[in-house]
Amino acid sequence: MPTLVLLRHGQSDWNVKNLFTGWVDVPLSEVGEGEARRGGELLKEQGILPDVVHTSLLRRAINTANLALDAADRHWIPVHRDWRLNERHYGALQGKDKKQIREEFGDDQFMVWRRSYDTPPPPIEKGSEWSQDADARYAGTEAPLTECLADVVVRMRPYWDEAIAPDLRAGKVVLVAAHGNSLRALVKELDGISDADIAGLNIPTGIPLRYELDDSLAPITKGGEYLDPAAAEAAIAGVANQGR
Amino acid sequence: MPTLVLLRHGQSDWNVKNLFTGWVDVPLSEVGEGEARRGGELLKEQGILPDVVHTSLLRRAINTANLALDAADRHWIPVHRDWRLNERHYGALQGKDKKQIREEFGDDQFMVWRRSYDTPPPPIEKGSEWSQDADARYAGTEAPLTECLADVVVRMRPYWDEAIAPDLRAGKVVLVAAHGNSLRALVKELDGISDADIAGLNIPTGIPLRYELDDSLAPITKGGEYLDPAAAEAAIAGVANQGR
Repeated sequence: MPTLVLLRHGQSDWNVKNLFTGWVDVPLSEVGEGEARRGGELLKEQGILPDVVHTSLLRRAINTANLALDAADRHWIPVHRDWRLNERHYGALQGKDKKQIREEFGDDQFMVWRRSYDTPPPPIEKGSEWSQDADARYAGTEAPLTECLADVVVRMRPYWDEAIAPDLRAGKVVLVAAHGNSLRALVKELDGISDADIAGLNIPTGIPLRYELDDSLAPITKGGEYLDPAAAEAAIAGVANQGR
Repeated sequence: MPTLVLLRHGQSDWNVKNLFTGWVDVPLSEVGEGEARRGGELLKEQGILPDVVHTSLLRRAINTANLALDAADRHWIPVHRDWRLNERHYGALQGKDKKQIREEFGDDQFMVWRRSYDTPPPPIEKGSEWSQDADARYAGTEAPLTECLADVVVRMRPYWDEAIAPDLRAGKVVLVAAHGNSLRALVKELDGISDADIAGLNIPTGIPLRYELDDSLAPITKGGEYLDPAAAEAAIAGVANQGR
């Protein structure tokens, strides 16, 4: 049976500082490294052994995969990386303090930028401190200058079709180590969540979310199953309060 | 110009304990993790930026690559792993204390097992503590039960031809993160070293060894160039004394 396991990276240095991150390539904090290892231990304890891993091009997801797979004794499996699993590009907000942006633009605008499905923040200026236009890893790609969640759904879908779905159809256990919004985009498609309802969906960090899929790659159980349901429930409440 | 960079993993837990390791999947020690990071810093300082990495299936090489590439800001490059880059299989010696084996079998036999080109140790018993016959990562491969260096040359060559050489011909900077003996096998072929002379070749740990290659993938400079030549020279003397 095809099995998909989603793993959102844990705390990064900029989560601690409460800055908008997006495509800025910040490292995991020590807490985040611990979350990754714990995620791997959950996989091992429950005998869910990935055959292949897909990550974004950002080190907080890459190192989450590395640490989790090492803890699960699956460090040796094939690896694929693609920018289409990156976090949502936060445009001109990248590198900015969340609290300051909230105070400067007000609660309503803040929530639109954070949670509206189809309104992106203003685009980042090319050549500015936190832009990626000179970054070698995006050479030859159509890297965005800002994104809303709808944009992430659109750019993620071809990677699902071309890279992830074939692994699942081959009956593999597929680990996707990625970000809050690229995983929300993936789950939106997988569970058929509406544009309105996706705003209310939070995915906790560091807790593997398992989907058993049927032959058409539809979930057997909608929403999947967290490998530590109690911790997931507690964490979901916390994520909703970010930026306050 | 095609560039090949070889990186031998640093100190593992079993180097510290002076045990024969081979295919036993022991972790790096903290010292070994530091060596890997330093290797990555050398790459970054000297502007040698890998486009792709090849590793063995063993965590001491995999984590060396992960740590070095993170330090070099190249954590996002494509990754390939293959058992044909594994350390030499040490047969029945795996898990055994080097000093005890030396005392039990004598200096001559000890040196034959460690350094002869074509005499492997006795094969490991299937199902024994340090054998890999139940290890999922080798399912479907013709995993050996013991190897001499000549065996490593033979099994490494097809991986060179099918996976590494095409990357080099495409003009990429290719990092190979592997082991003392799989790298000796590779260097033997690359530099055209005789079966007799290879016994005297030691590759130090954690110091990237760069080869610039011509269009036929022959080295421009025989022996390549270590990115920290003084440290390499000092280390080469040390390796020769292992097991004493």
